[in-house]
Amino acid sequence: MNVIIISIGDELLSGNTVNTNFSWIGQKLAGLGCSIIYQVTIADDKSSICEALDKIFLMSPDLIITTGGLGPTSDDITRKTIFDYLSINEKFDDSYWEILKNRFYEMGIKIGNSNRSQAMVPNQGIVIDNPIGSARGFHIDHKKSSIIILPGVPSEMKNMINDYVVAFINKQGVEKQYTSIIRTTGLSESTIFEMTGSIFHKNSNCVMGYYPSYAGVDIRMRGKSKKLINKVHFDIKNILNEKNIYSESDKNMEQIIVDLAIEKNKKIAIAESCTGGLIGHRITQISGSSKIFEGGFIVYNDHLKEKVLGVNKLTLEKYGAVSEEAAQEMAENILKNTGSDLGLSVTGIAGPGGGSPDKPVGTVYIGVASDDSVYVVKRIFKSDRKINKLKTSQLALNELRMKIIE
Amino acid sequence: MNVIIISIGDELLSGNTVNTNFSWIGQKLAGLGCSIIYQVTIADDKSSICEALDKIFLMSPDLIITTGGLGPTSDDITRKTIFDYLSINEKFDDSYWEILKNRFYEMGIKIGNSNRSQAMVPNQGIVIDNPIGSARGFHIDHKKSSIIILPGVPSEMKNMINDYVVAFINKQGVEKQYTSIIRTTGLSESTIFEMTGSIFHKNSNCVMGYYPSYAGVDIRMRGKSKKLINKVHFDIKNILNEKNIYSESDKNMEQIIVDLAIEKNKKIAIAESCTGGLIGHRITQISGSSKIFEGGFIVYNDHLKEKVLGVNKLTLEKYGAVSEEAAQEMAENILKNTGSDLGLSVTGIAGPGGGSPDKPVGTVYIGVASDDSVYVVKRIFKSDRKINKLKTSQLALNELRMKIIE
Repeated sequence: MNVIIISIGDELLSGNTVNTNFSWIGQKLAGLGCSIIYQVTIADDKSSICEALDKIFLMSPDLIITTGGLGPTSDDITRKTIFDYLSINEKFDDSYWEILKNRFYEMGIKIGNSNRSQAMVPNQGIVIDNPIGSARGFHIDHKKSSIIILPGVPSEMKNMINDYVVAFINKQGVEKQYTSIIRTTGLSESTIFEMTGSIFHKNSNCVMGYYPSYAGVDIRMRGKSKKLINKVHFDIKNILNEKNIYSESDKNMEQIIVDLAIEKNKKIAIAESCTGGLIGHRITQISGSSKIFEGGFIVYNDHLKEKVLGVNKLTLEKYGAVSEEAAQEMAENILKNTGSDLGLSVTGIAGPGGGSPDKPVGTVYIGVASDDSVYVVKRIFKSDRKINKLKTSQLALNELRMKIIE
Repeated sequence: MNVIIISIGDELLSGNTVNTNFSWIGQKLAGLGCSIIYQVTIADDKSSICEALDKIFLMSPDLIITTGGLGPTSDDITRKTIFDYLSINEKFDDSYWEILKNRFYEMGIKIGNSNRSQAMVPNQGIVIDNPIGSARGFHIDHKKSSIIILPGVPSEMKNMINDYVVAFINKQGVEKQYTSIIRTTGLSESTIFEMTGSIFHKNSNCVMGYYPSYAGVDIRMRGKSKKLINKVHFDIKNILNEKNIYSESDKNMEQIIVDLAIEKNKKIAIAESCTGGLIGHRITQISGSSKIFEGGFIVYNDHLKEKVLGVNKLTLEKYGAVSEEAAQEMAENILKNTGSDLGLSVTGIAGPGGGSPDKPVGTVYIGVASDDSVYVVKRIFKSDRKINKLKTSQLALNELRMKIIE
């Protein structure tokens, strides 16, 4: 089933609102086996809407979904414009107007005359109920396509997709798609592509994509055969190193860490320098992290490394705060200071200043300590300050992950 | 200047990636006086790209910007497809290939043959440099439009817009729009609208918008008269309280804090519980924060509040770790432990668990200590864990801001 989405709203084009409706609908419908083939964002403007409809009906999608422009104010023109475009007459729905008046009354709000437009209904098609808002939706068949018109308020739109659109799509007998994901870190997109590309060439019924971000590269697979998707997943897993695969579901690194640490009953503490608290922040995004996360020190200024964390003054003088030696002592001392099972340390130069020929901007050392061992890894990142911080946090959490499962 | 944006990528259509690139470009270009008239999202697919270009060149926009599909893998087909569409020949850029090889070598990564595609350049137009990534951009004139082709990696795309596209647009002599912003925190959108709405009704040549987020409500003003925009800005500022206005530019709270602390020569340290490191992370996002940020403690587990921060055991037993008393001691002790000028503390219940009738989920206490005073504020937030953390960090930083300027 081919689907096109029309997002209507000046606030989207001006960038003042991020179009999360579109990605939500995309994920929802892709999960039902639909292909979203095209999406447009247009202004709250009659000619923009009509021109977009001209183009899109020519593409003959099975389904068109519009969001936005069904509110009560004067810039909400979607309903009237589309009905005119389709030569549909509308009438005032007295019984819905009574319902609306009651709802507003119960909320203690006086209903405005501007809301009367929301009681208009077409003389054909289906009216889609909106139990949590005043703007109802519409489902109209035109040429070879169905057009479903929904409000832009995310909670209302999602409700109507879940309650109405999902059932409509399922009734069309769309063939189910199976999906799978392998989340990797520490390898570049091109390296992964070279390692795994041949698998995809051999399995053309498996649609794949590589999605890089600071966190690493996600490999997504999709196809109609569950067996094939499982096989491709298995083949890719066999080629890549366990160290590079941190997740085989949509779970992110911090969720994986918290799950593993709970399972293995390991208490964690961290000493962060250049990441400034980001690693602690990421871990504490996860509900239940308090079971395994003790806390830590943000030793941003060197004198705190010595004063509160007890890193040897001579170490800092001889090797510097950004050094293998400092990272090792930081990891060991965070363990001692907090009585945790695992200590993670990070020291580095996020940039843009602070680099030297010896230790350029982006140089980071990660230390991992437990009762019986400690080790340090070094890496040089080449991005800007914020991305260097993110990449450093991901590398550090991945080292911690490997330590937990060792 | 009319602009159309083409977002290219299967991951956008499937909803796996939210198109924040588009909203970022929209805001940036609207601020330069451009009108974003249309945006489409299409697949990494030759015919989709060509069909979109057919339609969009018919609309004769001044500028077309594409993002995405310039990576090294086989699904990255934007460059080749657009060059073919425009009948442009390309050649291999040996000197750029040397640069790329060196960059990868310095990062300790072996460059793949697939990256060779990123060294291809057109025989016309302009190549746009990408100092932080491997995919360069292209600027080509065709019919009445300019088309600018950029990578989809947000940091790289933004860099290239800031370094190249802004200058190009400014050179076109777009009629300047004057903009102004007042960033507020601690007031709801409807409260701000009731307080300031009449100002906008009186000044119809000033386009305004209220943009709520966890950080507060931004009030944006835009118009062709600099004098009018300044007047409206001044009128709004007079109505709102200094405590609620944290920024009169695009600078965010953390930048404001760092600027103020440098100006007033105040060293800052923090003790975070429920925010888990987020406040330290936010401050250290800012270059130069090391001048004023000492670091702090993440005392997530209660025994660390006592053990490393020295909060009195009796305080924790009698009042609990989430209490005015604990917040006060945390702020005082972080000052003592680090020797800073200002100590900030946060303790609270982010949720979803941990609440009680007395202290529901979302209850937070913020402590602010200096050599001569300490005070605590309490607030109850009603969102989910992640938003509660964000709102708490914003409230805490705003209290710190007020202390710095007092």
